[in-house]
Parts: sequence; structure tokens; C-alpha cells
Amino acid sequence: MSNPSLLILPGDGIGQEVMAEVKKIIDWFGDKQDLKFDVSEDLVGGAAYDAHGTPLHDDTMAKAQEVDAVLLGAVGGPKYDDLDFSVKPERGLLRLRKEMDLFANLRPAQCFDALADFSSLKKDIVSGLDIMIVRELTSGSYFGEPRGIFTENNERVGINTQRYTESEIERVARSAFELAKRRGNKVCSMEKANVMESGILWRDVVTEVHQADYADVELSHMYADNGAMQLVRAPKQFDVILTDNLFGDLLSDCAAMLTGSLGMLPSASLGSPMENGRPKAMYEPVHGSAPDIMGQNKANPSACILSFAMALRYSFDQGDAATMLEKAVESVLAKGIRTADLMQADGGKAIGTSEMGDAIINEL
Amino acid sequence: MSNPSLLILPGDGIGQEVMAEVKKIIDWFGDKQDLKFDVSEDLVGGAAYDAHGTPLHDDTMAKAQEVDAVLLGAVGGPKYDDLDFSVKPERGLLRLRKEMDLFANLRPAQCFDALADFSSLKKDIVSGLDIMIVRELTSGSYFGEPRGIFTENNERVGINTQRYTESEIERVARSAFELAKRRGNKVCSMEKANVMESGILWRDVVTEVHQADYADVELSHMYADNGAMQLVRAPKQFDVILTDNLFGDLLSDCAAMLTGSLGMLPSASLGSPMENGRPKAMYEPVHGSAPDIMGQNKANPSACILSFAMALRYSFDQGDAATMLEKAVESVLAKGIRTADLMQADGGKAIGTSEMGDAIINEL
Ligand SMILES: CC(C)[C@H](C(=O)O)[C@@H](O)C(=O)O
Ligand SMILES: CC(C)[C@H](C(=O)O)[C@@H](O)C(=O)O
Repeated sequence: MSNPSLLILPGDGIGQEVMAEVKKIIDWFGDKQDLKFDVSEDLVGGAAYDAHGTPLHDDTMAKAQEVDAVLLGAVGGPKYDDLDFSVKPERGLLRLRKEMDLFANLRPAQCFDALADFSSLKKDIVSGLDIMIVRELTSGSYFGEPRGIFTENNERVGINTQRYTESEIERVARSAFELAKRRGNKVCSMEKANVMESGILWRDVVTEVHQADYADVELSHMYADNGAMQLVRAPKQFDVILTDNLFGDLLSDCAAMLTGSLGMLPSASLGSPMENGRPKAMYEPVHGSAPDIMGQNKANPSACILSFAMALRYSFDQGDAATMLEKAVESVLAKGIRTADLMQADGGKAIGTSEMGDAIINEL
Repeated sequence: MSNPSLLILPGDGIGQEVMAEVKKIIDWFGDKQDLKFDVSEDLVGGAAYDAHGTPLHDDTMAKAQEVDAVLLGAVGGPKYDDLDFSVKPERGLLRLRKEMDLFANLRPAQCFDALADFSSLKKDIVSGLDIMIVRELTSGSYFGEPRGIFTENNERVGINTQRYTESEIERVARSAFELAKRRGNKVCSMEKANVMESGILWRDVVTEVHQADYADVELSHMYADNGAMQLVRAPKQFDVILTDNLFGDLLSDCAAMLTGSLGMLPSASLGSPMENGRPKAMYEPVHGSAPDIMGQNKANPSACILSFAMALRYSFDQGDAATMLEKAVESVLAKGIRTADLMQADGGKAIGTSEMGDAIINEL
């Protein structure tokens, strides 16, 4: 039997550097645990634009459809700010999400014990925090038609469409309930049903799925503005948060920042099962391309490494290997080994990106 | 010359109680400062629905159009949760905003010195915080057409439309720049121009208004998801934040919660000048109707009282009276006098809604 396949798309900014550390980890699992992958690599975002004039080449898209999982670094940078909307680095990422139909974006917001002091929130509010945000990723205002800038009555009008079908809501709701069953058994669904009809449908469908198949999971509903408040006020009240693409964009970033360590947070984007039973999947760190520190061996590779751990768990059924890797990252932190992003309060000397990768391998 | 006119709409939940304290303050200004208002009162939200089967009677709408300013308490409550969307309490509020064309919603997020400990954020992150959020209030996803729940291919589809015209963006941008000139001279505009065309138009128009008439104000742009992060990470970097209706709903609630004292936060919603030169205006506390504590003399009337202070400033050109009232509220806090919402950390005995109103009048 051939090895499972991985497509690595480092992308822009610090994407290259953090992905270099992930490759070391992949090699380690191949050498020491006989967990081997067929790894290929390609371009996305600004890097792809520079090479091909498009943020995602059709060949790369085709490869992504064929592999067992994609690992993505980050896209974007000031160099590409003035590009036309249609070829911006982000369009490459959005095309991957849409064409692979990765409808469930899993974003854990977890506060590492060793890092609770880094949060801008009080320690008792965030220590032990462990939320999973499930964000719908292939529909809503990100993709709805009509969209564009038009002229009406002699002035420009900017239009986007928030649009959700019943089946789009249903499938991502199922993902959230399934996850909750393996966690704290609670789902809080967020929308603006008091203002938007799309929110009413969202609430209805989530309630129906719940009643039909997940009545044993605790379900609550919250308006998204209150959700943003409650995340700041008392985030530990949440287990799984289920929300749409646009609200999920803001709420997951807000939740990520609560932990105080963006450089630590992974994400998984999952679609429907392929022929081999694996879900289509892309894994990426929550942090961006951080062009200000690129090429300086300063970036924290942990988020990208933990994204690979999510791949082990959700794509390759290697829960034990995933836990082993996660524990290694935690032990390194517990020893006070830190990249520059986590040095504010601690004092001490920061280590570089590659030294952090090495430290994690040592721990393994 | 007749007195300026005020329409009071206490609404639901704690709206009645907090407004009773505002009425005392209004009387005090009439008696002691010869600042007299013609006050009338009417129903909105669930209260109006109970009386008339609609969350805003046409007669009330007509009155709101005629007066110099509207003071609103709060709308909504569990009793009305199952009402049809078209007659929910919120529709009354949204109708007022839309028909009075109150396009600029000013939401100060200010951290009172005496209350910095109440924030879930670390004290040094929020103490001295003073942000003004300017949220567009009459357009965007709240009002765009088409909207509704339709059937397509045998399933339901929920649709809302994000829609902004150039002139809608321009007028609210002007409000933000004008405010910034009287404050820290900085505007940060937030949208998702990397994903949504409506965000591109937003950014373009804000930039044009800036270059044409406000080049001396410092302008920056931020993606709204990053905005949510930065609010949590380092909110003091902001002076005026300019954003659209839906992003503003989430971001202003997030910012409000940073201060740790939702019971203290007022808001103003302003439209274009009327014949008498005053802007159409409605003032309301940021907190909701808090049905759980209604009728128990527990609610904090400060937010509603500070909303009246905003009315003095923005509708009646009584900046000195407004400052006097704001200072009175601050002195009461500084003396450790607290309603129940602000007692968590302090210990001591909470006073009631009416005692808080009295304490503020004493201070005046
Ligand atoms: C880069 C951008 C297109 C993207 C988004 O808006 O979804 C990012 O913010 C994210 O959350 O993954
Ligand atoms: C009550 C509701 C309709 C309203 C809104 O969504 O605008 C509220 O959340 C607000 O922010 O004033």
C-alpha cells in the first residue's frame, strides 16, 4: 500500500520558515515511527502570483484535490496590496476552500498553561480555556452572488450576498455536534436571527438537526454580538461554538486572541469523505504571513506544527501520534523555551524558528 | 420660544426603571439650571406589541420624526421570542433607526478609572481606555434587499444582502472624521476588503473623503477580523473606529465589554440636520432589556443617564451641562457607590436603581 499523500503549500511571508520545521517533524515521524507520507510541495498566494500571475495555478488546484491532505502556511503581504481583487493572494486560499468544499473550519482556542500570563485577559478568566470554534467555510457572504461593485443612479454600490441553504447549514451543524460529543458535549450556535432572515434559517436548521440526531448534546443559541461580548467576559462558558463564515471570521480571531498566543493556534478545514474514506482536508495555522518578521528566523513554528498534529488526528486516524506531538509542544513551553512572540512578560532569551522546531523534536 | 422636545420610549425589561431615573435628571436640569424640555412618552418594542400588536405604532413613529430627540430604554425579552420576525420588538427599534435615517451610531467605549478592575482584561490594558466607535446604522446587511427565506431546488435558502452606496459610506465617514478632529485625530476604518467587494468600495470611499477634506486626520484601515483581535490585544491603540452596520454590531459590543461595565455605556444615533439645525437623534444605553433583573430595582441607570448627557451635547449644544452630568456620574463611582452589576470584586453593599439616580442628583 502506498503512503498517504501530503501537499505542502508554504505560501508567503513566514509560511516558508514555519513549514520548514513541519517538514522536519514529518521526517521524524517517518524515521522513528514508520509513519511515512508522500510529500509534494507547490505555490500558493503571492508566491504563486509571482511565478504564474495567479494566486493558485490550476495544476496546484488539481493536486490539492488528489492528495490526502493539504498543509498551508500563510498567504498575503504588503507587496500584493495593490493587486486586483481577482488575483490577490487571498483568492488562492478561498479557491482551495471552495473547490475542495471544505465546509467545516475547526479552530481550537486553547490557552496553554505555561502561557496563561500572555493573554491580555486576567489569568483566571483564560487559564484552562479550551474552546472549539466550528466555522462554516464555503458559503455565506464570502461566496454569495450577486456580488461586486456596480453603478446605480450615478454612484457606485458595493454588494455582497449572505446566502445559506438548508443543506449547507445542516452539514456543518453535524460536524459541530459530532465534535461536541467527543468534548464537553455542548454547542452554542451564533447568528443574528433577531435581524437577519439567514440567521433565522440557521437557527431553525441547527435546532432541527439537534432534535433529530443530537438531542443528548446541550444546545444553546446566542446572537453573534452577544457572542463577541461573552467571549471577552467569560470565555470558559463555551465548549463548541458553531457559526457562519463571516461571523466565524471575527469570532474565531477574537477567541484566538484571548489565549494570548496566536503563534500557537492551528486550524483544520474539513470537507466530505473522499473515496478512500478520508475527509478532504486542509490544515493551516491561524496566524497570518507576518511579513514584518519574515526571513528573520523569528516566527513561532508551533501553530503550523500543531496543524500537522490536527492532520494526524483528523485525516490519518493517528490520534496517539497527534497527542504525542501536542504533548511535546506543551513540554517545550513548560520548560520556558520560547520564540520571540512569547517573550513579552517572561524575560529571558528567545530562540529562533528552527531552534524551536529542534526543541520540539528533542522532546519527541 | 418653546422648549426643545424629547420623546421618551422606555421600552421593555429594565427600560422603564432606568428611564425613571433619567426623568429625575431631566427634572433636575429644568428646576436648577432652567434647562427645560417638553417631554412626552410612548411605547416601543414588546410593550408596544402588547398594546397595539406592532412593535412601533405609526403615531409613535410620527412623533419621533417631530421631536428634537428621542430617548430609548431597551427592547426585547423572552416573552416575545416566538413572535413572527415582522413584529419582534427589535423591528420597532430598527424602524426608528431607518425611518429617522440615523446613519451615524456613536458608541463610546470608555473605561472609568474607578471601574478598571471590573474588566476581564488586565488593568493596564484597559485603564484610561477611550474609544469612539462610529457604526453605520441604516444600511448594510440589516436592510439590504433581497432578503428572506425562499425555496430553491426543494430546500429553504436564507438570504440577506450587504449593500452600501457611495453616499451612504461618505456621510458616515464624514461623521467619523469630524469626531476624530475633536478627539485624538485618528480614524481606523474596518471592513473585509480582502474578501468582499462592499469592503473594497468602503475602503475606497473612506480614502477619498479623507484625501479631499480630512487629510490632517490620521487614517488607517484594518480587516475587521484583525480589528476584533486588536481590540482584545491592545485596545488603547484606537481613537475613532469607523465601520459598517453588521461589523459595528459585533465590534462595538466587543469594545463595550472590554470596559467591564456595560451598565455604564451610552450611545447616540444621529441623522442629518432638521429644519431647526439639530440632527435627528436617538439616544440609548448599550445594554439590553435584561429581563432577568427587571422590576427588582437592581439595574444600573448610569448608561441611560449618560445617554441623556450625550443628548445634551449632540442635540442641544449643552456641552457644559453634559460634562457636568458625566462628572457627577464619575464622582459617584469614585466614592464607591455601586449598583449590583458593579459589585463582583468590590464587596460592600449594592444600592438600587433609584438610589443610584438619587446619588447622581446629589452629586449634581
Ligand atoms: C486571509 C483571509 C481571506 C481569511 C478569511 O477571511 O477567511 C483569514 O482571515 C482567515 O480567517 O482564515
Ligand atoms: C437589538 C438589536 C436589533 C440591535 C442591533 O443588532 O443593532 C442591538 O444589538 C444593537 O447593537 O443596538
